[in-house]
Amino acid sequence: MIKYPNGGPSIKTDRSNKNKTSNRTNLGMNLEKDVEISSKYFIDHNQAIFYKKPTPIHVYKVSHDNSHQITEAYYDKKSTTDYNGLYREKYIDFECKETKTKTLPIDRLSKHQVEHLYRVKRLGGIAFFLVRFNTLDETYIFDIDHVIDFIKLNDKQSFSYNDIKTKGYLVTKSYSPRLELLKGLDEAYFSDEDKQEEDY
Amino acid sequence: MIKYPNGGPSIKTDRSNKNKTSNRTNLGMNLEKDVEISSKYFIDHNQAIFYKKPTPIHVYKVSHDNSHQITEAYYDKKSTTDYNGLYREKYIDFECKETKTKTLPIDRLSKHQVEHLYRVKRLGGIAFFLVRFNTLDETYIFDIDHVIDFIKLNDKQSFSYNDIKTKGYLVTKSYSPRLELLKGLDEAYFSDEDKQEEDY
Repeated sequence: MIKYPNGGPSIKTDRSNKNKTSNRTNLGMNLEKDVEISSKYFIDHNQAIFYKKPTPIHVYKVSHDNSHQITEAYYDKKSTTDYNGLYREKYIDFECKETKTKTLPIDRLSKHQVEHLYRVKRLGGIAFFLVRFNTLDETYIFDIDHVIDFIKLNDKQSFSYNDIKTKGYLVTKSYSPRLELLKGLDEAYFSDEDKQEEDY
Repeated sequence: MIKYPNGGPSIKTDRSNKNKTSNRTNLGMNLEKDVEISSKYFIDHNQAIFYKKPTPIHVYKVSHDNSHQITEAYYDKKSTTDYNGLYREKYIDFECKETKTKTLPIDRLSKHQVEHLYRVKRLGGIAFFLVRFNTLDETYIFDIDHVIDFIKLNDKQSFSYNDIKTKGYLVTKSYSPRLELLKGLDEAYFSDEDKQEEDY
């Protein structure tokens, strides 16, 4: 059984049917699959680019016969966020998190990821966790600033569904794109701009 | 021996020392090393973020004893560009190219990379090739639009040094950061903005 340090492999071939038996491997996989399929739609329609960052892998040995063949390597635990990209001229960076309960434990958000997203936000990018409540099949854009405020102001160990629903933005599902991520981003980050444009 | 100004590289890539026997692997490595060291400086000074995208690796087998150990994998040839990031609120995407001669053959720029950078530019990002002439030790920001214009208007097989020098922007070297990439970007993409700000 394959266990990955960050809840799931990031390389397409890892997500083969072979892994379907492993619950651990599939943690976070449904959301990521939806994001990937939606990203393809957005690229094909020239609307946005979102990239899955591959999990960094340390290569130790390559084959003598074929320099493309790696014979010993290790997953690096210290990866940053899942995705970055470009939408409406802005740099976007986010991390997918799924939960089967109605809470999201803070320790599911690594310090490394929180710091990275905070840095992105400070430099003028858009940075958030994309949180899915599996049992409700609801997905939210939850801005890094809310995460940081929450950690500063609370001594709770988890975000509740209400915390995220109240401060976050619902990303609706549809047939194509599967996740209406751009509509969610419009609402979360561009609604003032859109309003101004309408006023003209 | 490589000396790092800030105690070491942050993320080790697959291009580890073990690969030094392969010429193919080291192609373009001096420039990339400079970009990596400079990127660390920019992050430490909260000026910009540039990420090396790891070369995608397809994992085929993992060890039974240690699930983090990969025993068979292959480099994916179809990677996109080397770096993306965030500077002055803009999404930045670029690919490093080094040449030992005074020309850069067009076939060194893969169709896949050119298309990707073109898409980035159309979506409002900043997209370029970072070209180094090794013998001159000169590095240029060469915008994707110039690349595309050149390919459309010429039947030449290579960019000359003059083509790139004329249309590109020189990125000077210094001690720290090793590559003055931000100054180069300021000149190439933000000089109008800076001028307007000065006028106030």
